[in-house]
Formats: sequence, C-alpha cells, structure tokens
Amino acid sequence: MVPVGTQSTWKASGRLADGREIVYFDETPGLDRAVARDTRPLPPRPPGPPGPIGSAEQGIRWDPLAGEWVVIAAARQDRTFLPPADQCPLDPSAPGRPTEIPASSYDVVVFENRFPSLREPLGRCEVVCFTSDHDSSFARLVPRRVRTVLEAWVDRTEVLAALPETRQVYCFENRGEEIGVTLHHPHGQIYAFPFVAPRLERMVAQAIGYVGGNLFDDLVATELRAGTRIVARNEHWVAFVPQAARWPYEVRIFPAARVPDLPALGEAAREAFGPLYLDVLRRFDALFDRPTPYIAAWHQAPVKDAAARGVFAAHLQVLSVRRAPDKLKYLAGTESGMGVWINDIVPEQAAMRLREACQQ
Amino acid sequence: MVPVGTQSTWKASGRLADGREIVYFDETPGLDRAVARDTRPLPPRPPGPPGPIGSAEQGIRWDPLAGEWVVIAAARQDRTFLPPADQCPLDPSAPGRPTEIPASSYDVVVFENRFPSLREPLGRCEVVCFTSDHDSSFARLVPRRVRTVLEAWVDRTEVLAALPETRQVYCFENRGEEIGVTLHHPHGQIYAFPFVAPRLERMVAQAIGYVGGNLFDDLVATELRAGTRIVARNEHWVAFVPQAARWPYEVRIFPAARVPDLPALGEAAREAFGPLYLDVLRRFDALFDRPTPYIAAWHQAPVKDAAARGVFAAHLQVLSVRRAPDKLKYLAGTESGMGVWINDIVPEQAAMRLREACQQ
Repeated sequence: MVPVGTQSTWKASGRLADGREIVYFDETPGLDRAVARDTRPLPPRPPGPPGPIGSAEQGIRWDPLAGEWVVIAAARQDRTFLPPADQCPLDPSAPGRPTEIPASSYDVVVFENRFPSLREPLGRCEVVCFTSDHDSSFARLVPRRVRTVLEAWVDRTEVLAALPETRQVYCFENRGEEIGVTLHHPHGQIYAFPFVAPRLERMVAQAIGYVGGNLFDDLVATELRAGTRIVARNEHWVAFVPQAARWPYEVRIFPAARVPDLPALGEAAREAFGPLYLDVLRRFDALFDRPTPYIAAWHQAPVKDAAARGVFAAHLQVLSVRRAPDKLKYLAGTESGMGVWINDIVPEQAAMRLREACQQ
Repeated sequence: MVPVGTQSTWKASGRLADGREIVYFDETPGLDRAVARDTRPLPPRPPGPPGPIGSAEQGIRWDPLAGEWVVIAAARQDRTFLPPADQCPLDPSAPGRPTEIPASSYDVVVFENRFPSLREPLGRCEVVCFTSDHDSSFARLVPRRVRTVLEAWVDRTEVLAALPETRQVYCFENRGEEIGVTLHHPHGQIYAFPFVAPRLERMVAQAIGYVGGNLFDDLVATELRAGTRIVARNEHWVAFVPQAARWPYEVRIFPAARVPDLPALGEAAREAFGPLYLDVLRRFDALFDRPTPYIAAWHQAPVKDAAARGVFAAHLQVLSVRRAPDKLKYLAGTESGMGVWINDIVPEQAAMRLREACQQ
C-alpha cells in the first residue's frame, strides 16, 4: 500500500489468476487489496511473442511505403464484444460472479488487458476503470475522482516508460459504440508502444523544426489572442478547437505551463484539471440529444528522447465523429486512402456551439 | 466528339444548368451528347472561394502540429443523403425526372460534384458514374466497361493535372454504407488537390530516400518471391496483400512495368487491367454473405514534380473495413488519435481467404 502522487492516492498491486498485473488506486488508505483473490480458472497466458518484433500472428510489421509500424494482433479478433450488462467484466466481483476485478468495490483500477494488441517484450496494453459504477461515464465523475484517474495515468506513465522497450506511453479513452467500443463500463486504455506513433512523431518533428520560439507555446498564445475558438479555460488549463480541426468536434486541452508529460505536471495543474475537463466533456454530451461518442487522447513526449522532451507540450485531444444528430463522420476515400481530412464543421462554429452547449 | 485513349472511347463535354462541366465517355461513336440539355432550374453556383487558401467556410487550413493541410467544407454538410432509388441523381434522365445526367443513357460519365469539398481555384471534385444501371456495382461491370472507366480516369488525370493549382489527381471509389456512402448508384470520385496528400507525400519521401534500387520495384519483387500474399496476377498486373497491411482486407495492385501515373500506362497494361481488377473485387464480395464495403484508391505521382515522378509507382489500393461477417474495423483511439493501425487479420491469412474466396 503505497501513497502515490502529490495528494492522497493509495496504490496496491496484485496478480490476476493468469498472472496479469492489477493495480488499485484508492482514495482512502487502509484497504487490504490482497484479500480479494482472483478465483477464476483462467488458462495461463501463452508466452509473449518472441523476438524484437514479435511473431507472424502477434507483432509489429514495418510498412516500407509509409515508413510506419503496423500492429498485427490476430488474437484480439475474438475479444469480448458488447456483453450484457450483468456480465460486464469491468464491474467489481460479486458473490458467484467473479470479474476482472477481484475486489467487491474500487475507486480506480488498472490491469493488463486480457486481449492485448501488444505484449511484452513488444509493449503493454492496460485497461483503466474510472469507477465501479457500470452506468456512469467520465463526464459524470466528481473532480476528486478525476484527480485519482490523473494520478493513475501519471503512475502508469512512469512505470511503463521505465520498461526497456517503451518509446511512448499513450493514455486514451474510447467512448461510444459509434467508434467501436465493445464494453460500456466507463474505462480507458493505456498503451506502451515500442515505437513513436506516427502522429506523435510528426508533432515532434514539427516542434523541433520550428524556428523563433516554441511551436506549442506560440500555438496556445495565438489561440488565446484570437479567442474565437476557446471553449473553456481556468487558471491552469485552456481548451480550444484547433484552427485546422480535422474532426466535426475536436478540442485540444493544454496546461498553461508547458510540460513534456503528465508526471511533470505540478500540484496546482493536477488539481485544476478535473473541473476543466469535466466542463469540456459535459459540453460534448450536451451537443446532441444523446451521449456524444468521442476519443480522448493524451499526447505525451516520447520517452528516452531529451530533444523531443525539451520542445514537446503534453496535451489532451478530444474528438468526436458525430457531425449532426443523425450523422457520423466516416473516414472514407480521402481520409483512409490519402490522409486528407475533410471537415464539414467550421472550427469557429464548433467552438461556438460547444461554448453555448451548456451554461454551468 | 473526340476519340480518347488508345482504343475507341469517344469523349464529349457540355455544361449542366448551373455551369458545372459534364463529360461523357462513350463506347460507340456518333452519339450527339449536345442534344440532351439540363432543363432543371438550378440556382447558379456561388462563386468559388477567394484567395489561395479559400474562405473560412470553404478552404484549406494548415495544421502546424501535423504539418498537413485540412479541408474545411461547410457547404457539404447538407449534401444528398441516401435518397430513395427512384430519386437517384446519378441515373440517366427520364421524361419528367431530370437528374445530374441530362442524357437518357450513358456508358461512363464524369461531372463536377454539386457539393464539392474543393472548388476552383483551390481544386476540383468530380463524380464518375461507372454505369447507368443503378443496381449494378463495379465488380459486375464487363471488362470492356472497366477499360472505358480507365480511359476516363486517364483523361481526367491529364485534364486536372493541367490546372495551375493542381499538385495531385486522386481517383477513388467508396462502396458501402458502412463507410459512409450516401448514394448507392455505382460511382467513384476524382479530386484535384492543391497539395500533395499526406499519405502520398510519405510514400514519395520513402521512395526518394530509398537506397540501392527502387522502393516499389523491390517491394513488388519481394512479394512475387514470397508468394504467400499474392491474391491474383496476370501478365501485366499483380495484386497482393501488403506484408504490413493496415486493414482487415487490403490489396495493392501494381502494373508489372512501373509508371508514375495512369496516363503513362501502355496499351497492353490498360487492356489487362479490367480482368485482373474484376477478379480482385469479386473475391472481396465473396468474403462474406453480403457485399463487402471497400475503398479503392489510386495512388499516382504528384504532378509537376520530376523527382517524385522518377521514382513513384502508380498503383491501386483496395481496402475493406469489414473484419468479420458482423464486425467492422473502427478507427478508434490508436488509429484516430495516434495514427497507429492495429490489424486483427494476419496478412497471409487475408491473402489465403481472398485466394480461396472464389474459384473462377
């Protein structure tokens, strides 16, 4: 039981029946997480893929035309797919119904994905459950809980960055069947990549090649001056629709003081994040007459790369594929074939709608 | 009435009621396409966006973090969306039912999109109808018709490449509601981009930076040697699943003799394309118990760029988002957030299934 972070979050780790790691992040001290044991007769996990790039069925392959890595993960094809609510594997365990989480309740819990896209020694895929309440959502968490989730992201970023193969730690949330979510329980994912993802690589290259200042600092300053795309802000964070937004509704959330990654955030910024992010997510959910599907993606500097860390600004990107109450944005010929995004919503109008979406 | 291409295809162009250009590609000579006039009371098109990058509502914007252009096209938000079959705007006109095509029948016809993402002076968006048969599909065309479509692609590539702003001509087809198709009539699209698309730019950079030979030549030779991912081939074309395929079912089709773009294809290659491509598309449609949604994307060298044209190999990429009879591949947090593709289908198995999908 180890306190983590700069406020009171207590961490305890254990193992599931098949050897996967599970880590509890508790908001109160003194809970003995070793008591709840995973009693399921799970088959032991097969050994991880051999070699530096894995096997034919599970590994990474180099695309020489794009100059990018692609992940091949055949074992995932049979992963759990939209189970009934009473069979949710992310609920806490109950008598006669053991789940992925042996405890009978939890605040925030992280465990290794049973159907991972990447496994040691290539990388690692973790699931992070935001609440034991199956019917909740991130937008309905209280700020104290968001702080605990943030401490879990910080902890996992530090732990996974220390693995020898890790080049990037990626914390994200997929929300909504419209983008392929297969479990409704409020949860996110954390990937340790053995390479720097193409989108991050491009951003780092743009920042390193930028002359006359810092790319991110100038971008945020420009948005603050323009004002037309600001969605929300407080003393430590600002949320805006990018001037060249790709997605119908897209917001980038930057801390006021640039840091390369989440562990570098100071106490005041950590505490101020929850209220700002909850405000943004509630605006997304107020856009339409139903919950808005979204992807929330934490961009953090590559690990073990001092030059990149010196210029990069960690930030959160929230994007939605819904462009109208009954219409989704599809990635068709221009996006999937050519990487050219066509956005039907003018970014300034998206910002205005998000600003007006709810008055709090 | 001008014969085009290296076989007998006759081309005739005219104007629709709002001034948009329409071009017929006929398989028989002597049809007077000027007879059929567009009688619809269409409002004149608003003037194109001003300036080199357009207006706030319709134009291109530079994303400084990605170093890429994004297209903003607000006017498209209200485009025709899944009309009933008897109101299809791509059918030939009939008495009392004028459509986008004034003629009462056609072989292949191209016209400027009424709801374009890009307009002069920024670029141009055209629609290409493959057949006047509303209920057909590309896979059900006869080889002669595929040749006519190919001649239309060649012609439009030449014409659009000659526009002063054009940097790339992109011919593609979206098929299936699963990827957002809003009109079922068999058709494709042709874009003239005022920039080089990110995916093409990356390929060109990889090819120019490749040492010891030509990237594409070596790639095709490697696939032919390996054999495990070949799907179909004839004397002039080869179709294979890429070793690092991103999509559940993805095939790249290369001509045996490298050319930078479609106009550079010789007569024999043009004639041999139809049989090979039809074979590949029929294999896609035989994978599942329903028509397979796909994107078919022609990669052609950037125009006005001698270095790129010297190394590039024009080819067709066909990709499907269907990964199982009842499951689609979604672009969620890893793909949309980070540009990391995770493929659940092992490329060698995808190739085997496509090979076994139909015995012709």
